[in-house]
Amino acid sequence: MKHLSSTAIQEMDRFYRGNLINSITGFKSASLLATRSKYGVDNVAVFSSVTHLGSNPAMFSFIQRPLGYGAGHTYENLKSTGQITLNHINSNLIKKAHQSSAKYAPDQSEFELLAIEKQERDGFHAPFVKEARIQVVASYVNDYLIQENNCRLVICKITDVFLNEDHLLEDGFVNLSEAGSAVINGLDGYGTATIQERWSYATAEKELQSLPTTK
Amino acid sequence: MKHLSSTAIQEMDRFYRGNLINSITGFKSASLLATRSKYGVDNVAVFSSVTHLGSNPAMFSFIQRPLGYGAGHTYENLKSTGQITLNHINSNLIKKAHQSSAKYAPDQSEFELLAIEKQERDGFHAPFVKEARIQVVASYVNDYLIQENNCRLVICKITDVFLNEDHLLEDGFVNLSEAGSAVINGLDGYGTATIQERWSYATAEKELQSLPTTK
Repeated sequence: MKHLSSTAIQEMDRFYRGNLINSITGFKSASLLATRSKYGVDNVAVFSSVTHLGSNPAMFSFIQRPLGYGAGHTYENLKSTGQITLNHINSNLIKKAHQSSAKYAPDQSEFELLAIEKQERDGFHAPFVKEARIQVVASYVNDYLIQENNCRLVICKITDVFLNEDHLLEDGFVNLSEAGSAVINGLDGYGTATIQERWSYATAEKELQSLPTTK
Repeated sequence: MKHLSSTAIQEMDRFYRGNLINSITGFKSASLLATRSKYGVDNVAVFSSVTHLGSNPAMFSFIQRPLGYGAGHTYENLKSTGQITLNHINSNLIKKAHQSSAKYAPDQSEFELLAIEKQERDGFHAPFVKEARIQVVASYVNDYLIQENNCRLVICKITDVFLNEDHLLEDGFVNLSEAGSAVINGLDGYGTATIQERWSYATAEKELQSLPTTK
């Protein structure tokens, strides 16, 4: 195996290091986070850092990069309005989703600029991505400044879920392959996944049992 | 689309809610985190919460659940010895990796109990999972207590990377599909992924260009 040492990593060209380090922590989730600013401008942006944080209370987190680089609209809108939607990226949405990582002015809506079809739902302030087969609504809870690089861990509480019942199993498992949810590899690689096995809750005493992956 | 409201989510059976909420934040990375305790016991455990945190300095984070439930050996060993390895889970390792989530006594090594082949490398305190095709060494940096559920965000600095050169592209991108890295769906679903597209850095001015996904 090739060994990339600490010194080698430090001395890498920054684009090379960015590609490498973004890849070697494994596959990432592929989400479009959508918000509406307090001035009524709808924002949508791709995130690969959404992570499950807990089921009760139901929460996820995402990483907000340092503010003030022309980015941060998602975070600002979430903080000022309290609401965000997480929309799964499927194959059809990949190229548009990737383009949403470009820096646009705060008075411009990526929905219009990138022709991402918007969906509004009664009773919800934040917009949804219509084509997404799984949509999650969440509210702002808290954020933690990560001193080491000035990123923020943003904590959101899940309030509502919209999904196609075909992909929802009897025990609450949602088959994300069937729902067409994409995965992200590194900074800019996108793919599809196939779920092959599910295993029962592990204990020291019992053999694992295979669980159904489809309805 | 089916709407699961805030009330519905709160009133769900806890296992159903656990499956649902763990699924709907998208696919997760599949890692075996390995550590050696200060008493010399080697620990290895599956984590689905490893997330890229930054490339310079090169860092990742993972979520440590509340301590004191018989779990937390990974966190304790990392804090007391300063070192951890992240090992990608491939198809062959899935069942053993899942079993590593069972609670074992701190003087028991999951490497031995589960017949996960261990690799030691000169100059590194923490052990490696021999079968993993991507191995990352990291050191403890900091951790943040998440007040909302007593989990911890643990920050690790990447010091070394071991990988097969076949999967490493000229620009530093690592094709995780070719490396056989698994993805996790929910609490207990495992699968493989196929990278289909890569897109150039997005700006408001330029058209995206397709990038190579293989060597």
